[in-house]
Amino acid sequence: MELLKNKIEQEGIVLSNTVLKVDSFLNHQIDPNLMSEIGKEFAKRFANKGITKVLTIESSGIAPSVFAGLELGVPVVFARKRKSLTLINDLLTSSVHSFTKGETNEISVSNKYINENDVVLIIDDFLANGQAALGLVDIVEQANAKVAGIGIVIEKGFQDGGKQLREKGYVIESLAIISSLENGKVSFEAGNKGEGVN
Amino acid sequence: MELLKNKIEQEGIVLSNTVLKVDSFLNHQIDPNLMSEIGKEFAKRFANKGITKVLTIESSGIAPSVFAGLELGVPVVFARKRKSLTLINDLLTSSVHSFTKGETNEISVSNKYINENDVVLIIDDFLANGQAALGLVDIVEQANAKVAGIGIVIEKGFQDGGKQLREKGYVIESLAIISSLENGKVSFEAGNKGEGVN
Repeated sequence: MELLKNKIEQEGIVLSNTVLKVDSFLNHQIDPNLMSEIGKEFAKRFANKGITKVLTIESSGIAPSVFAGLELGVPVVFARKRKSLTLINDLLTSSVHSFTKGETNEISVSNKYINENDVVLIIDDFLANGQAALGLVDIVEQANAKVAGIGIVIEKGFQDGGKQLREKGYVIESLAIISSLENGKVSFEAGNKGEGVN
Repeated sequence: MELLKNKIEQEGIVLSNTVLKVDSFLNHQIDPNLMSEIGKEFAKRFANKGITKVLTIESSGIAPSVFAGLELGVPVVFARKRKSLTLINDLLTSSVHSFTKGETNEISVSNKYINENDVVLIIDDFLANGQAALGLVDIVEQANAKVAGIGIVIEKGFQDGGKQLREKGYVIESLAIISSLENGKVSFEAGNKGEGVN
């Protein structure tokens, strides 16, 4: 998605060979116009899949998801993160390890909002090692619902989350796939716009 | 806002005399159509105020805010909550006590995204004792920016946050003001649709 790749080139800050900061339009400040276009793009890529619900995870997944949900005409559910394991009835839960933060969070969704009749589009802001996406898939499958696919705003193609999930047979649509952040430059995957930025 | 009040009557769950659960369309599952209408309503109520930015707080403030930001044509910034106080350069921070959860969180916003030229619309999902809104006001004022007003989806009129903030001179626009949750019934403030539910 050119609009998104241009924005990453203009405003993304490469903090290391593995960390890209996009706080100016996605993770802290949000560009509502871009999010609206991203929502429309997800809706287009997952049209005619019978989607009944969008599932994401707080907080940065919410903005792209609500625009996708609006466009698809379906509700959005966001999984909550919590550090400690609190057993509450009627919650679907999964553990998600964050390599960046070095901690494991429990994520949870009420079983009122995902059930066996649902066809779920999972959306998240980043895909790196795939832990969050795998946790969301786990929750959908615990509910005996169907995963229609996974929509990702920015995939780090040089980490193995995308590979793992595609090998398991899940359809992933990433709007920008980064092949490298080396030497402070953002490079996109071949077939995409490949120029770097500093 | 009739659409919102009808939704509260149909789907809100009164858990006690002070707690209303609206997990089906705002706090866990999100109704994107309703959020889009809410965003438009905030934009209408705060039109011609020279707003340059919407400020909210993760996670439930994000959905109504991004639609308001889209309509107003301005970026949205969401404050992050964290339990422990970590001093990081360039962060505007404030303490917010939650009476419901019995804990104090620090909320923070990068000073890159709010500055003295900004005219800020603060948006939040609920207004009860006003602690979150006061924390957001504090952050805007630390940045020497101007508070244009405060947009609230659901105000609990029987708690004193709204009174406190109005006495300080802030303009508050609440789309639904609840006067009472007694006897398991939602009552709206006079002048609004006053019928209970249950």
